[in-house]
Amino acid sequence: MKLADLPTPSLILDRRALAANCAAMAARAQRLGVRLRPHMKTAKSAEAAKIATAGQFGGITVSTLAEAQYFAEHGFRDMTYAVGLVPGKVDEIVRLERLGVRMQCLVDNVPAVAAVAKRAAALDAALALLIEIETGGGRAGVLPEQPELLEIGRAIAAAARLRLIGVLTHAGHSYKRKGEAAIAAVAEEERAGVVRAAERLKAAGLPCPVVSVGATPTAVFARSLEGVTEMRPGVYTLMDLYQLAIGVCRREDIAASVLATVIGHNPRTGRILVDAGALALSQDRGAAGLMEHTGFGWVCSETGARLDGLYVAEVNQEHGMIAAASGALPWERLPIGARVRILPNHACMMAAPYERYNVVDGGDTVVAVWDKARGW
Amino acid sequence: MKLADLPTPSLILDRRALAANCAAMAARAQRLGVRLRPHMKTAKSAEAAKIATAGQFGGITVSTLAEAQYFAEHGFRDMTYAVGLVPGKVDEIVRLERLGVRMQCLVDNVPAVAAVAKRAAALDAALALLIEIETGGGRAGVLPEQPELLEIGRAIAAAARLRLIGVLTHAGHSYKRKGEAAIAAVAEEERAGVVRAAERLKAAGLPCPVVSVGATPTAVFARSLEGVTEMRPGVYTLMDLYQLAIGVCRREDIAASVLATVIGHNPRTGRILVDAGALALSQDRGAAGLMEHTGFGWVCSETGARLDGLYVAEVNQEHGMIAAASGALPWERLPIGARVRILPNHACMMAAPYERYNVVDGGDTVVAVWDKARGW
Repeated sequence: MKLADLPTPSLILDRRALAANCAAMAARAQRLGVRLRPHMKTAKSAEAAKIATAGQFGGITVSTLAEAQYFAEHGFRDMTYAVGLVPGKVDEIVRLERLGVRMQCLVDNVPAVAAVAKRAAALDAALALLIEIETGGGRAGVLPEQPELLEIGRAIAAAARLRLIGVLTHAGHSYKRKGEAAIAAVAEEERAGVVRAAERLKAAGLPCPVVSVGATPTAVFARSLEGVTEMRPGVYTLMDLYQLAIGVCRREDIAASVLATVIGHNPRTGRILVDAGALALSQDRGAAGLMEHTGFGWVCSETGARLDGLYVAEVNQEHGMIAAASGALPWERLPIGARVRILPNHACMMAAPYERYNVVDGGDTVVAVWDKARGW
Repeated sequence: MKLADLPTPSLILDRRALAANCAAMAARAQRLGVRLRPHMKTAKSAEAAKIATAGQFGGITVSTLAEAQYFAEHGFRDMTYAVGLVPGKVDEIVRLERLGVRMQCLVDNVPAVAAVAKRAAALDAALALLIEIETGGGRAGVLPEQPELLEIGRAIAAAARLRLIGVLTHAGHSYKRKGEAAIAAVAEEERAGVVRAAERLKAAGLPCPVVSVGATPTAVFARSLEGVTEMRPGVYTLMDLYQLAIGVCRREDIAASVLATVIGHNPRTGRILVDAGALALSQDRGAAGLMEHTGFGWVCSETGARLDGLYVAEVNQEHGMIAAASGALPWERLPIGARVRILPNHACMMAAPYERYNVVDGGDTVVAVWDKARGW
């Protein structure tokens, strides 16, 4: 099958770029001396996860229980569910554990420990917990120096069916820096913070075998991960315009795109219309804030070459409106029925709603179709 | 089953609000003397479509071929695919026609007519076409007075397997006005433009039995639809904060919400964290630009009462961060594990990725589970 035979909008994955991104990250993890537990919230695909975990210990990270179920069905047996655990999710975690999946979950406060301990006890089940550490991301987690860190650790240790296995952080603020030096500085904050938290737990006599960091920018630019045991980057698998904008990847590393068809020309507004809109591309505009003429994605030819200065300037639910940086649209090159590929602002958001990847190896032949998880 | 038994995030539909919205729109269509062809791109649900078409002629509008397939499988036999037709979609339209579904499609230019005519001829199939008219929305369509209107009409009439059935417009710019008077003025532009286009076609001896308008704001506030034969509003089925912000609905008309669980407290940033983020709520911020303290959605109690001044201020992929307009968060009212319901900025965007609706009749009992279409 060729790309020309696919319905549109369709999600395209360039396996060569994915494989190169995964090989590069594997080499970084090895050089930094840490295990690689790729975050599969980005690709949500078992075939992609096999490539991302090739040569690694096999563990992955997930962001929803739907992903956990999907990857369990596809043979993955070691997962960290990297969103704060609540009692209502314990039953499903325990069900997966009983299927033979090693599950690790997060907490960042004593009431959550008490609540999940109660549910685990009711199910006569054990839970392995990581304490989430705040190292600058400003989202969740306890600060490395906060007294509550030891209280949480002790509460876990004191609960009969809970086991403290370590600490975990996500340097979300690395997305707000640009370039190697600035991001390397965040990576050091991330490392130092989570290692300090681990040291405090150990000094208090608590176990802390896992010291986990995770964000693509810091994973790419970290100079040392001394004291860290694993990293959990995710978006590196597919890369996107945001990672390009902050200097983390090159254009050719972007592995995911949406194939769309030209459905109209509007010379009055200076727009070429395609059948990929707010749902097909997502409304993420992260990269647009960093790079002019990015909008809802860069427009490429069907085989992936950037069409100079074209971008999706506006979206409605199922309509995308392409503009040209120069103002001069290539009307004749993109007649009604022509196809384009649109690169994502944010790969995680763009890929999420699709049921499958249409896989190419750089060309226009669909060499495989990969299923994927979606929804919750 | 109770809402308390559902996993989170889950999509909730209040059937009482849906039914009331549908009854109100049916009454409007009757008063205005037009047929109602509800746009099911919003609810994407056969059960919702049955309510929306109750007492009507049974036709619906769709925005993707996946919706067309889904509704065909659920017994709907008259659909307008309201996105510009291209040759690559003709095969599927013809397949649906051959299953007994009456399909109407759009074109707004002569090359599209030629291209779809060629594909229809190759398939030995007929196509019923509407000409899309631009009445101020600025997206697609030919202007009522444009010479091309008659050229398109004649091209359709001249093609052996194509049949011109009318004109269609969408007053997208009605979303940019606020209040009855301003929106009624847009409704009159929409009406006058599409009726003028129909008159020109008829004066040229071309058939134009269908004269179709469609947008929820104009459908709600139109004073006359003289010369129009049908309307295709969609978001009125579920309503949302955007429609509230522009004065088209009341708080109690909003039928869709996302049930989420409190997964964390961050007193340092003044945020309560929930497990509904950028994917579960969408990144649509349309209403946030019109109403302060709206963010990515208003936060309500599990049974739907607005929690005063609470809104989702920030989102990451699977994390939502709740802030309070007053700055004072109700930490004790929303402990870890508590549940909230979040009202959408834009119902079409929020509902799209979910697999099903959990239906309530105003209370906290799940009275039905409705499947729905998603993806492409």
